[in-house]
Amino acid sequence: MGGDRAPGEIVAGALRAAESGLPVVLVGDPERMGDAGGLEVIPASETIEMHEDPARAVRTKKDSSLVRAAEAVRDGRASAMVSAGNTGATMASALFRIGRIRGVGRPAIATAIPVPGTTPTVLLDSGANAECSAAWLLQFAQMGAAFARQRFGIADPRVGLLSIGEEPGKGSPLVKETYALLDAGKAGPSVRFIGNVEGRDVMSDVVDVVVTDGFTGNVVLKTLEGSMKFALNTVLAAMSSSDEAKAASEAILPALLPLVDELDPDTYGGAMLLGVDGVCIISHGSSSARAIYNAVGVAHHAVTEGLVEQLRTAISTN
Amino acid sequence: MGGDRAPGEIVAGALRAAESGLPVVLVGDPERMGDAGGLEVIPASETIEMHEDPARAVRTKKDSSLVRAAEAVRDGRASAMVSAGNTGATMASALFRIGRIRGVGRPAIATAIPVPGTTPTVLLDSGANAECSAAWLLQFAQMGAAFARQRFGIADPRVGLLSIGEEPGKGSPLVKETYALLDAGKAGPSVRFIGNVEGRDVMSDVVDVVVTDGFTGNVVLKTLEGSMKFALNTVLAAMSSSDEAKAASEAILPALLPLVDELDPDTYGGAMLLGVDGVCIISHGSSSARAIYNAVGVAHHAVTEGLVEQLRTAISTN
Repeated sequence: MGGDRAPGEIVAGALRAAESGLPVVLVGDPERMGDAGGLEVIPASETIEMHEDPARAVRTKKDSSLVRAAEAVRDGRASAMVSAGNTGATMASALFRIGRIRGVGRPAIATAIPVPGTTPTVLLDSGANAECSAAWLLQFAQMGAAFARQRFGIADPRVGLLSIGEEPGKGSPLVKETYALLDAGKAGPSVRFIGNVEGRDVMSDVVDVVVTDGFTGNVVLKTLEGSMKFALNTVLAAMSSSDEAKAASEAILPALLPLVDELDPDTYGGAMLLGVDGVCIISHGSSSARAIYNAVGVAHHAVTEGLVEQLRTAISTN
Repeated sequence: MGGDRAPGEIVAGALRAAESGLPVVLVGDPERMGDAGGLEVIPASETIEMHEDPARAVRTKKDSSLVRAAEAVRDGRASAMVSAGNTGATMASALFRIGRIRGVGRPAIATAIPVPGTTPTVLLDSGANAECSAAWLLQFAQMGAAFARQRFGIADPRVGLLSIGEEPGKGSPLVKETYALLDAGKAGPSVRFIGNVEGRDVMSDVVDVVVTDGFTGNVVLKTLEGSMKFALNTVLAAMSSSDEAKAASEAILPALLPLVDELDPDTYGGAMLLGVDGVCIISHGSSSARAIYNAVGVAHHAVTEGLVEQLRTAISTN
């Protein structure tokens, strides 16, 4: 029921996933959902809207699709949950119903930032916690590295701390404190800390996992979204600026389109909530059927490869 | 003497400015500077390097070009200073030698983010203060609005507070506290506060002045730099991907180049240090002669239009 294009695109994406062999169960109001194409439906009479206060909504709307989806994961009726709805409410329902992995201070949202030509950069926290402690950031480094290994097959991911200069002394007090912990190896041998990185490194091949607090991470994510959209519109405007340019663009588009596709957030399906005791994917509010289809694939992959087990190990052994 | 391309490009830019009728005085080591083309030179035997600790360097290198340039402004031998050198040392020399405008808590760096088709967005603080108080952010709003008026002729600039959601309750404790002050009109009638804005709004036409702490602002600035560079390289690669594409790109480039030019940081010459009692421009370390020429023009404009007076008024009347 969540997202700007629900339920139509969500159901369509789920059907596509089911057709490709990934079993999907829908959660929501059967009447509003319409034709579920034969998929199993867990009924939920309520919906948490985008503007609602997350914690309060999860507390009061016990029969909402988000709460019921989290309960389905908790009860083993589903192996993972995917939502394009209210981000905060998705986190809250996962946190309250599925619970945290033992030892995790706070779950974090890990977003894959596309870097055409190479593996994406994992940015976390990209919005779960507006305020963070150094101990949490240390865990984000551990969980981010485990996720980069599982999701993108990066054997020994390079972990960087987002700051405003490469030197150890640069940044906010939080960054300096976290730097000291990471530099002293407090995250354990599974984290290959390469030092501070800067905003310009996120869309590059110098780092695999970028660790930051949820305020800064969310600002980075939305700044990237805005600037890439802007750049794309600029290029498209230039390509249709004259009849000559329109004709010429046909020669350039074949080289450009695969990159545009790689930059499309729908390609990645959504962000992963790391630290809860189950697989939970937070998809973009504007998710298309394709985004949902990809998100289900990512969820399936995470379940079959044992992401949660790997996160548990990353947290408990350090 | 500052910047990756000093002194050659710096002197060349200064000469271009002088030829266009803007009087320029160079500060630095006459021997290393080479032919100054007849421009007045204030000799300075030392240079503060990019890696040096700013406060310490300014304290110990009393005959450095940065310290002497700031003294020239203090003593009335120059009306403004422009530097492509060590950013922290530029700030420190301006702060220690020129001093703050009375009442200013901390100076902030204001950067003009290009938005093709409309006036740039002023982002501040883009790096002077890694940690800020709400009272300082309130003054950044006042100074940013005054700067947007003077620099870009925006009569009643829209001032937004950078956060991770548009609702008043979103963001870090600092953002929430600052929101309350701005929303209560504590910045005075000269600040038209439009509420929270997000990263995606920086390169758009919904806001004129974006207020944030220097850590977040610097991350945004470098994220934008990285993503625009990335986008540009992507398009250029597509345009040279085949002989056909190369030929076709000639039809598209005439529409694209003016935008690329508008996005080039050299076009804006540098960032303005707001809050010190004189005009101080911090240019990019990679500044070309063109960047320096533009920076001198911006400095001249700020002096003739009385930017510092306007900042003084903005701070003192609220």
